[in-house]
Amino acid sequence: MVPERISELDTPCLLVEKSRLEKNINSMKSRILGLGAVLRPHVKTAKSLDCARMLFGGGTGPITVSTLREAEYFFGGGFADILYAVSIVPAKLPRVHALQKAGADIKIILDSLETATAVAAYGKAQSMCFKVFIEIDCDRHRAGLRPDDPQIAKIAALLVENAGTEFAGILTHAGEAYACNSIEEIKEHAALERDSLRTVSYALNDTGIKTPCTSLGSSPTARFYDHLDGIDEVRAGVFVFQDLFQRGLGTCTVDDIAMSVLTSVISHRPDQNRLFIDAGALALSKDRGTASQQEDCLYGFVCDAEGNLIDGLIVDGVNQEHGCVTARSGALDFAKYPIGSLLRILPNHACMTAAAHAGYQTLESDGTLGDYWPRCTGW
Amino acid sequence: MVPERISELDTPCLLVEKSRLEKNINSMKSRILGLGAVLRPHVKTAKSLDCARMLFGGGTGPITVSTLREAEYFFGGGFADILYAVSIVPAKLPRVHALQKAGADIKIILDSLETATAVAAYGKAQSMCFKVFIEIDCDRHRAGLRPDDPQIAKIAALLVENAGTEFAGILTHAGEAYACNSIEEIKEHAALERDSLRTVSYALNDTGIKTPCTSLGSSPTARFYDHLDGIDEVRAGVFVFQDLFQRGLGTCTVDDIAMSVLTSVISHRPDQNRLFIDAGALALSKDRGTASQQEDCLYGFVCDAEGNLIDGLIVDGVNQEHGCVTARSGALDFAKYPIGSLLRILPNHACMTAAAHAGYQTLESDGTLGDYWPRCTGW
Repeated sequence: MVPERISELDTPCLLVEKSRLEKNINSMKSRILGLGAVLRPHVKTAKSLDCARMLFGGGTGPITVSTLREAEYFFGGGFADILYAVSIVPAKLPRVHALQKAGADIKIILDSLETATAVAAYGKAQSMCFKVFIEIDCDRHRAGLRPDDPQIAKIAALLVENAGTEFAGILTHAGEAYACNSIEEIKEHAALERDSLRTVSYALNDTGIKTPCTSLGSSPTARFYDHLDGIDEVRAGVFVFQDLFQRGLGTCTVDDIAMSVLTSVISHRPDQNRLFIDAGALALSKDRGTASQQEDCLYGFVCDAEGNLIDGLIVDGVNQEHGCVTARSGALDFAKYPIGSLLRILPNHACMTAAAHAGYQTLESDGTLGDYWPRCTGW
Repeated sequence: MVPERISELDTPCLLVEKSRLEKNINSMKSRILGLGAVLRPHVKTAKSLDCARMLFGGGTGPITVSTLREAEYFFGGGFADILYAVSIVPAKLPRVHALQKAGADIKIILDSLETATAVAAYGKAQSMCFKVFIEIDCDRHRAGLRPDDPQIAKIAALLVENAGTEFAGILTHAGEAYACNSIEEIKEHAALERDSLRTVSYALNDTGIKTPCTSLGSSPTARFYDHLDGIDEVRAGVFVFQDLFQRGLGTCTVDDIAMSVLTSVISHRPDQNRLFIDAGALALSKDRGTASQQEDCLYGFVCDAEGNLIDGLIVDGVNQEHGCVTARSGALDFAKYPIGSLLRILPNHACMTAAAHAGYQTLESDGTLGDYWPRCTGW
């Protein structure tokens, strides 16, 4: 029996409000396109063909992926222009090669001469050519070479000179923006992210190497570039759904959060001042990113079945399949939340919450059930 | 191409060493059977038919599940005797009913007169009978009624008197044992867990109601009952794989941990004294349970590709698809871990780590690849 209304869904169930999703997408698109850059969304958050198509008005376009499984899944759905934005290792080249042979315009990234040499050798041996970005570390957050590292020019030269590789560009990700405490700080990181790439691009130019593409982005910084001169494309992912962590950063409000987990009240424990729900560590994730923010959202905020925030409640604990909901102050009014009644939990980190679910039950703007959107998982 | 050795596996990849798994299973079985009780393993950890069959010497037996999806999956694989150990809500009764009609001997649990009334009404309306356990809260950790709650006798009487329900027993779970700091404390929780059920059972007997089954268990307490008089069955789950949290509790050693995540070194960052691996927040989980223990394992311990612990290394950060490995003290010796080389990460919490993976690549005791064991996910 296909469910026709929220009350007929099996819980826990991942919900997505299409109108909020569309609003988030349009806001980001108009911002980035208005700055003269291309949006190459990171599809690792939703991992959904339907969501990716919504990003391109029903069609396809350039995407960023975090796994080769995603690359294969999205290529199968018609997305050919793919940037695989996690450092490549030689053992993964056969899968990249297979995608390329099948027609994918796939780009890989690396940050060492050692890996570049191995990629060039593989490409030459297979009589094919890999498109390679060099990863730049703008803020000591993750992998990549520091903008002033002389290795960058050496790698670029190697990629240019070898038949098995093509120097496709440089990319960076301002991961430290996630640790910001104010919009002003995020703006500084946005400028740092952009200017790091510009610096590298100019320096390469001075050695006679043209940078075909400059690619940057994170959901927080993507909202706050004052210009993108010299930047070709912006990558961002979580902005499609938003979440409580983004709210804590100040990059969205609770009303922008498009994803929630529908859950049933399964037990009342007045002596603990808690009620239990059937969304626990798997359905919600154990992400506690907001613990370091001004307002700690514990394991998530609580809404009623229609998605209206219930200010007084919070998820204060999770076991594998149990969530604990308590009152922020005073006694829980259990009569308001009978056993079997439905609540919705807003996620701390949309990417992590979505990961345990097989797909999304979409909601239309009138609250009726829309399509079910499957997602890909694994590697 | 089917991989024939570890070096041919796509990373990240969830590995299970069969010999350790068998040892963990045999140890728990002999302990519980030796105390005269039945082991009803909680299959929510592995969610794997192959693993469940290993628990029963290749056959089937009584199991505990945490979702109806698990119940359906394991019933499909021949496991008929199933305890669904999360409080039922009326909306889930049709799926339970369907399993029962198909031949499953499925038991459900609840902790309120309200739910018991609804279950009885549904059973009567459908001319069928649900087998119902009453959940007891022995340590204020989760759902259930306190052992001295007069509601217990009322619910038991209702279940006995109604045609739509059968009083199947009482169950409890010493979840607070996970917060213990010593074996002595775990032993106290084990005794509390057992004696709580005995108290309830005796009290029900005094009202003329016989308790058909007493069911208890958690992986920590299950190792430390000095007797199980009056107890019929023990439930435990994570003991099959063990993990760093169990090690921190003192219920296993690092050498007992049967699960690990195979990962590739993907980047060297000497300026951060870190190397990056392709196992991040999804492949490892963000579980930080060990943060409250004497030794904080951060995001996991590091082993070489053969599974030998590398004492000096630890995973000190995760992004979605990146893990950061650093030296516990001093400078990382990058030459030992070239890009593309393989490591294995021991999980903080096996249930959470396994959740993102589609299945297990088993390893034989000589290190060669065994069968691939799929697992079920979702709800």
